[in-house]
Amino acid sequence: MNKDKFQEYEKLYADALLNDSIPFCLKYAPDRACGGYFQCLDFDGSVVSTDKFMWSQNRVVWIFSMLYNNLERRPEWLEMAELGINFLKKYGRDENGDWYFALDRKGRPIVKAYNIFADFFAVMAFAEYARASGDRGCAEIALKTYERIQLRKDNPKGQFNKVIIENRNLKNLSFPMINLNVASIISGINNDTVYDEIITECVKEIMTKFLDEKHRVIRENIAVDDTTMDDIYEGRHVNPGHGIEAMWFVMQAAKQKDDWTTIYKACQAVKWLLEFGWDKEYGGIFYFLDLRGKPHIELCWDMKLEWVHVEALIATLMGFSLTGDPELFEWFEKIHNYTWQHFPDREYGEWYKYLNRRGEVNNRCKSNKWQNFFHLPRALYLISHLCKSLQNKGF
Amino acid sequence: MNKDKFQEYEKLYADALLNDSIPFCLKYAPDRACGGYFQCLDFDGSVVSTDKFMWSQNRVVWIFSMLYNNLERRPEWLEMAELGINFLKKYGRDENGDWYFALDRKGRPIVKAYNIFADFFAVMAFAEYARASGDRGCAEIALKTYERIQLRKDNPKGQFNKVIIENRNLKNLSFPMINLNVASIISGINNDTVYDEIITECVKEIMTKFLDEKHRVIRENIAVDDTTMDDIYEGRHVNPGHGIEAMWFVMQAAKQKDDWTTIYKACQAVKWLLEFGWDKEYGGIFYFLDLRGKPHIELCWDMKLEWVHVEALIATLMGFSLTGDPELFEWFEKIHNYTWQHFPDREYGEWYKYLNRRGEVNNRCKSNKWQNFFHLPRALYLISHLCKSLQNKGF
Repeated sequence: MNKDKFQEYEKLYADALLNDSIPFCLKYAPDRACGGYFQCLDFDGSVVSTDKFMWSQNRVVWIFSMLYNNLERRPEWLEMAELGINFLKKYGRDENGDWYFALDRKGRPIVKAYNIFADFFAVMAFAEYARASGDRGCAEIALKTYERIQLRKDNPKGQFNKVIIENRNLKNLSFPMINLNVASIISGINNDTVYDEIITECVKEIMTKFLDEKHRVIRENIAVDDTTMDDIYEGRHVNPGHGIEAMWFVMQAAKQKDDWTTIYKACQAVKWLLEFGWDKEYGGIFYFLDLRGKPHIELCWDMKLEWVHVEALIATLMGFSLTGDPELFEWFEKIHNYTWQHFPDREYGEWYKYLNRRGEVNNRCKSNKWQNFFHLPRALYLISHLCKSLQNKGF
Repeated sequence: MNKDKFQEYEKLYADALLNDSIPFCLKYAPDRACGGYFQCLDFDGSVVSTDKFMWSQNRVVWIFSMLYNNLERRPEWLEMAELGINFLKKYGRDENGDWYFALDRKGRPIVKAYNIFADFFAVMAFAEYARASGDRGCAEIALKTYERIQLRKDNPKGQFNKVIIENRNLKNLSFPMINLNVASIISGINNDTVYDEIITECVKEIMTKFLDEKHRVIRENIAVDDTTMDDIYEGRHVNPGHGIEAMWFVMQAAKQKDDWTTIYKACQAVKWLLEFGWDKEYGGIFYFLDLRGKPHIELCWDMKLEWVHVEALIATLMGFSLTGDPELFEWFEKIHNYTWQHFPDREYGEWYKYLNRRGEVNNRCKSNKWQNFFHLPRALYLISHLCKSLQNKGF
């Protein structure tokens, strides 16, 4: 019976990927006149802003290259990735080789290279595209960008860093999390043991420092100095979706090393975050929470975001597939039901990204400055893939 | 009959100021151990964060000094202002005399001086306190800070400015708006015609550039270069509450010069913004809107904020008191009804600051990093004052 269920799920997620999410992006995102992608799209695919953000442009390249490498060698996917690669190669970097935060439609830089996550996503995009196309120049851009990140990592924001670290030195989960993810992708084009060391170090930092077993959460910020974390907003900030996403990165890395202690710990953390983050009144997972239940500084704290839910689907199903823990599968189905009831737009295609606490569409965009073609297609691909392998596991 | 009505309103607003808002702040905000104020307070007055933001600390000093100067010379108000002044004088500025963005509880700087609005509020605070106390040293700090602002005004963010202005040069309404407000306050301690010129220039810029008569809104951003504003988020961004607040600053300045053309234009703009910004479904004024009705980039766009509503109360009543326009008084009463139904917390005192679109409390804090003791007491004072004068106008 479970085999049938996984078969059904596989079909559902693969269908959403191949017949909904990808076609919407292929239809509305390409900017054939200027290169790159329109990344801020309204419910019907019409363009909301023509600006191009290096974060998200690179994420689109990565998705199409990854699908080409892992799912099917469809020429239109490689061609779509190339549309971004050519634009990014030409306009994306400043004179140091660091990635601008934003360009205008024609590729003129409008926001400087202050955000190192643009560089991380560029490494992912150029490494994955290099594997797909065999373009050695792109592999070199990935490696060069990765080197620059390592040089900048102690002060990623450089001159733009406003924090006086002598008096307030916090570390955010994002850095080890993406470092872990990117190291495992770049190791696919460059066989060097250094990536393995980075992965080990990131997993250790996340699982011993950010994971707070006493309070049963993953913290977004930890103190490098002796700041009292409980008295300030940042110290109590919990982002359940982000922590849950980190946990499946950790599961993947730990699986490579056959480290089952870490896998079980990551599964436990996913359950803790879901227990804490699930909205018992209206369903769905809160965007942000305060560890002590105090008012959060962000007004959108109670919203239900698509990326949060699809990351939780990946983490629960991956955890279940590794450990067979039935509680994780129960969570998967609970989140699955909420997600499919609320996010897909059955009229215009693609999924809504932003719902209010009650699960009503708060912002009808299908993509914007921060969210475009990334979390959803990655999740649809990984979940259909997991469901396929689960059919033969006999759970 | 109207006389009775204005008498009732006067009593209601004065009572909320003197017997609700001020006592809540006096009870929970003073940090007697370290100086300055706890400015992030939960619904019951308990402290949510001990950090101190120069923006808001200075605004509290200004309010208590202003009430002492204009309403009643109560020693506890001056003493409260002094608690902030001493802390700010000692810790608030960096080596250039620019105001830090944030300090920790003990006064150690944690965020550098990147935000010139902290400096503007410091000018207001130190100038108003100097008038209240006769402290010449404070007047000098106000003047010195104002000089630094004029030096920094072409690039207020300095090294922290991430925008490449050769390719994207926008100007925000905030600058001329606060410059106008602060020039009129500082002219109270320094009799110089330069302030009058600044006021004239700011009113002109707001009423000819930011006020878009064709689209019947006040724009938050205008292009200094030839950027196509309609294709980007920032270009279409409308913040009705902010534009409405700017309009009563303009009315005050225009009244000084007996410039009735500008007064009528400002009243018209208030009505346009209310027409555009009023939520026809749930009532209340939206926080942010897109000029073309496209999805806004900020997720909190549909929320109902206390400061927006009290600024709209000031602007409509001030406009009515100047022109007698009955439509403005209708708007005042409509907003009054919404505001008093939704924002006051009749159990714990003070008003909620953040409601969701339906008017339910989304964040139960009474003050935070961005909003504390400023918009509400200023509005309660100004509205009770306007109602007093309206009793003798015979409208």
